[in-house]
Amino acid sequence: MLYSIHFDVIVVGGGHAGTEAALVAARMGQKTLLITHNFETLGQLSCNPSIGGIGKSHLVREIDALGGAMALAADCAGIQFRVLNSSKGPAVRATRAQIDRVLYRQAIRFQLENQENLSLFQQQVDELVIEQGRIAGVRTQGGVEFRSSAVVLTAGTFLDGKIFVGLNSYSGGRSGDVPAIALSDCLKELNLPQGRLKTGTPPRIDGRTIDFSVMKKQLGDFDPIPVFSLRGNASMHPEQLPCWITNTNIETHDIIRSGLDRSPLFTGIIEGIGPRYCPSIEDKIHRFSDRNSHQIFLEPEGLKTHEYYPNGISTSLPFDIQIKLVQSISGLENAHILRPGYAIEYDFFDPRCLKSSLETRQIEGLFFAGQINGTTGYEEAAAQGLLAGINAARYVSGEAAWIPKRSEAYLGVMVDDLVTQGVNEPYRMFTSRAEYRLSLREDNADMRLTETGYKMGCVSEEQWIAFEKKRENIAREMERMKSTWIHPSMLPVKEAERVIGKEIEREYCLADLLKRPDVSYDSLASLTSVSGGNWRTEKELDKQVREQVEIQIKYAGYIERQTREVRRQQYYENLRLPANMDYSEVNALSIEVRQKLDKQKPETLGQASRISGVTPAAISLLLIYLKKQGLVDFAETHE
Amino acid sequence: MLYSIHFDVIVVGGGHAGTEAALVAARMGQKTLLITHNFETLGQLSCNPSIGGIGKSHLVREIDALGGAMALAADCAGIQFRVLNSSKGPAVRATRAQIDRVLYRQAIRFQLENQENLSLFQQQVDELVIEQGRIAGVRTQGGVEFRSSAVVLTAGTFLDGKIFVGLNSYSGGRSGDVPAIALSDCLKELNLPQGRLKTGTPPRIDGRTIDFSVMKKQLGDFDPIPVFSLRGNASMHPEQLPCWITNTNIETHDIIRSGLDRSPLFTGIIEGIGPRYCPSIEDKIHRFSDRNSHQIFLEPEGLKTHEYYPNGISTSLPFDIQIKLVQSISGLENAHILRPGYAIEYDFFDPRCLKSSLETRQIEGLFFAGQINGTTGYEEAAAQGLLAGINAARYVSGEAAWIPKRSEAYLGVMVDDLVTQGVNEPYRMFTSRAEYRLSLREDNADMRLTETGYKMGCVSEEQWIAFEKKRENIAREMERMKSTWIHPSMLPVKEAERVIGKEIEREYCLADLLKRPDVSYDSLASLTSVSGGNWRTEKELDKQVREQVEIQIKYAGYIERQTREVRRQQYYENLRLPANMDYSEVNALSIEVRQKLDKQKPETLGQASRISGVTPAAISLLLIYLKKQGLVDFAETHE
Repeated sequence: MLYSIHFDVIVVGGGHAGTEAALVAARMGQKTLLITHNFETLGQLSCNPSIGGIGKSHLVREIDALGGAMALAADCAGIQFRVLNSSKGPAVRATRAQIDRVLYRQAIRFQLENQENLSLFQQQVDELVIEQGRIAGVRTQGGVEFRSSAVVLTAGTFLDGKIFVGLNSYSGGRSGDVPAIALSDCLKELNLPQGRLKTGTPPRIDGRTIDFSVMKKQLGDFDPIPVFSLRGNASMHPEQLPCWITNTNIETHDIIRSGLDRSPLFTGIIEGIGPRYCPSIEDKIHRFSDRNSHQIFLEPEGLKTHEYYPNGISTSLPFDIQIKLVQSISGLENAHILRPGYAIEYDFFDPRCLKSSLETRQIEGLFFAGQINGTTGYEEAAAQGLLAGINAARYVSGEAAWIPKRSEAYLGVMVDDLVTQGVNEPYRMFTSRAEYRLSLREDNADMRLTETGYKMGCVSEEQWIAFEKKRENIAREMERMKSTWIHPSMLPVKEAERVIGKEIEREYCLADLLKRPDVSYDSLASLTSVSGGNWRTEKELDKQVREQVEIQIKYAGYIERQTREVRRQQYYENLRLPANMDYSEVNALSIEVRQKLDKQKPETLGQASRISGVTPAAISLLLIYLKKQGLVDFAETHE
Repeated sequence: MLYSIHFDVIVVGGGHAGTEAALVAARMGQKTLLITHNFETLGQLSCNPSIGGIGKSHLVREIDALGGAMALAADCAGIQFRVLNSSKGPAVRATRAQIDRVLYRQAIRFQLENQENLSLFQQQVDELVIEQGRIAGVRTQGGVEFRSSAVVLTAGTFLDGKIFVGLNSYSGGRSGDVPAIALSDCLKELNLPQGRLKTGTPPRIDGRTIDFSVMKKQLGDFDPIPVFSLRGNASMHPEQLPCWITNTNIETHDIIRSGLDRSPLFTGIIEGIGPRYCPSIEDKIHRFSDRNSHQIFLEPEGLKTHEYYPNGISTSLPFDIQIKLVQSISGLENAHILRPGYAIEYDFFDPRCLKSSLETRQIEGLFFAGQINGTTGYEEAAAQGLLAGINAARYVSGEAAWIPKRSEAYLGVMVDDLVTQGVNEPYRMFTSRAEYRLSLREDNADMRLTETGYKMGCVSEEQWIAFEKKRENIAREMERMKSTWIHPSMLPVKEAERVIGKEIEREYCLADLLKRPDVSYDSLASLTSVSGGNWRTEKELDKQVREQVEIQIKYAGYIERQTREVRRQQYYENLRLPANMDYSEVNALSIEVRQKLDKQKPETLGQASRISGVTPAAISLLLIYLKKQGLVDFAETHE
């Protein structure tokens, strides 16, 4: 049957990509439908019970800055919060939270159910409806056809999902969940370049059978307790729990090696490539054969369960080996495995077939987001979902796609990496992927993105007002720091020594003093001699504002240098290449480069430069050609 | 692989039957394993979000009296509590609770995870391991073999489950869940008499699209707030919510009729028979064609969701008809369906192949409980699970099965009905099924069962102590009521008129006064003239005790008559028939009766009397034969 309502945007899938896509399209005013095979798994964390971490938390903050759900849900469901790299520079600092799975699902479902313009529907999607090269809707297992102008497909690991434990395998979208086989078949008919990837998860352990007394306890940060969302606060956090640390040992490694002949990975049964930076324990033992021990984090799965997630021993070894390897670890001698670890192999599509908007090149109005594009991680999925949702909404409104720049957001880095370089293993975010990471900090995600988000309609009025106030407070405080001068006569020697480390020999503005390595904003603020001035107490000036002021002043030199670099690169980076450009005619280029460019059809010169095998020399030659042909005038920039 | 630990009892399935079975076997000290395909659905309410109701609440209280989980979980998850039939006699009074699905799952999982002797394991079970006619364990989808002395199978609607919406159908264990096809195939090989049943569920509605202002509001009871478990109290209840009442109308019925040509029920596509007392709306329209309206209850699915369950419109009509029929109902004109209604057809096994212990006759140590035996309802499933769990535990310990009598418990009525009469439609409990329902009240479930439960080891020490105290308080108060005499001179006229309605003409004991129709325990207790005696205030004497004393005294005449009747019947009822009895030799019986008895092999004369076609005359003839053959001496009673 044909469903009578025509939607603007249909989102298929209720995981991290799907929920952000649906929420943002609806926030932007589009009549949106989220279809998933089971409401009970909306917002499910299929693998580790945590969100954030280095590189990933940057994406979470960017999603938050654009009004998304993940950070806020993490604040409502987080049972341990830590700032990683807190002693290092602000560019690599990262927030990470352990998550109660039940509370997280509840928080996400709450946002979905209360989003204006968003309807939900439970049923498996079996087919895409495509008419004249353009998406027209989806058809469900129950034979219902929903029509829409755009579709965002976020199928995760469900497309022809196959689960492996040892030499045993069976179909599944996730342990306990149905795979999406009909949809996979339907997509195969579209002949999009496709491959198989794999990911894995460790066995889960009954906490009642763990001896925590021999393990190292790891608590969260308490002073201050970190908060993920700019709209969140620590009072949203539920009760906090510790994690526990133990290690594999030589015996563990011997046990693992004894099972390799029945490993689906090592016997070649699994064809898909797994995530390099989240390898299975058997892979780690193999690759780092000189190491006698690996750290294992026992992470609680929630407040009301004894289930523990042993982070570090993801495995698809046979179950008998899993039991032995777990029980060889200190503290786990009597451990009972509640759910076996497994690997899952699934279809993904070469993201080089996507535009930077995440719209497929082949089918107009069809967007892909999440693991289907070859990424790994909740945060990577959610960020893509958000971008696909924004661009699906803009597509429906006839607006040009929003493509965040590499210099603007990790989101921009990720999407550009995906669409220009493709993946040959599950892609995960790292700070090292961002060439402008000094500017792309966790702490300034809102400064980078909220205004854009507000203009696009994906940031609420409430969030915008709070942001504007914060931005104004920062600007005002920056100004005061630069214009408030401290004369040596104003500063008693004792005070100077306490705060600055020595007497000052001449007049300095507060900003200058703050640039000194050992001086912090808070210590400056404790200068009694200037407290009669404009110093605000902690309560008056938000922690976030103080943090911004400190970072902007302390790192001003580096940041300015990076900003200049960004500007210099920007012209060429954003130089748009004609869509119908015939690279075979650019005789100056090698045949190989011409073929690569022809196949890939980069949208900008910047993208062209990042295609593997396209050298800086080739880019120069290409630029000369464009100028000669008068095509550079034709080219326009993103801005 | 072979799992190294040998279990006493393995329970397959994590629904209502499975959880009670696993919990009780573990409580009784057996090393127990619960295997289910997905932990996230442990304790899931697959259909309506409510527990209890007439007949059903009696089962819930009996489960509670035996230390089971359901009542306590309902107290932790109930968002509206009502006592039905509160104005009628105590025999038909029934407690009913609306349930928050998320909180219920959480409460059940909490009990499971914290039960000593109980381990959990997530994986689909594909095979039973049977050796020489005896159960030996189960084999999972992942190829793991778990060995045990007994197995309780509680497969619900999952065995070869097939979902129907209109003429469309597909495999599923429940919407969004995988069916158990391999296990169904394995069971088919055992050649147990098998059939198909069906059940159904209504479409779920987004509360944001319901106009409640035109509906009737139904609140729960507030004075007092009912409590399900004897171990529970009202302070466990979360926030309470109302239900809403609306009606179908002539237009609704016309719409339904217009879809019958595409109904899987009416076109004969569904072979399985559905529950007579919980029919689909199309069935109701068809069977009660003279009615122009049926009541619909809109039940909230939980505190944190807008999802509503429209109780009364279970349907497998095509989805387009579902939309129209829903939107034809007052207040639902703009309703958005979140999940379509559907019918599900599944395998069940003829319960006449079970012993009264719920052990299969064919395979020693294999027990069946729940919908697999042809029942419907969470409570019926849970009660069977409890009984199967108890008897699996007793089987492992080499103890005789516990078979509750029809005069002892609804549990006894249900199991006896099932194993003697079989089912030709899903069996649900009613008070009318119990011939001794005056004695089998909701309020005295503990008086009937807790002592037995304690002796069997399924009631905790804590519950037992509380029960003993209650029982002692009742006995003491009963004694006082009978031995405290009120002389007319002790009772001022005004007081007598206020409490008893008129002066008393001679001395009465309190019990005699309480028997008068208009006198209640509480009004008697307000007699100031005797308050100096032994009356206890409400706080001192528990409400449950006062209730028991009042019922036992007021209904003493009826109850005693029923008790005599029970005793009279008991001898013949419990007369055990020899297991190897050859009925073909009982020439006095008709060939038909002999064949029926031979096929059914009843365990007692009482069971024989309830086999359809076995007349009271035939029972007399059989008794004569038994006496003649000297077999009555051989026979022993259950007691």
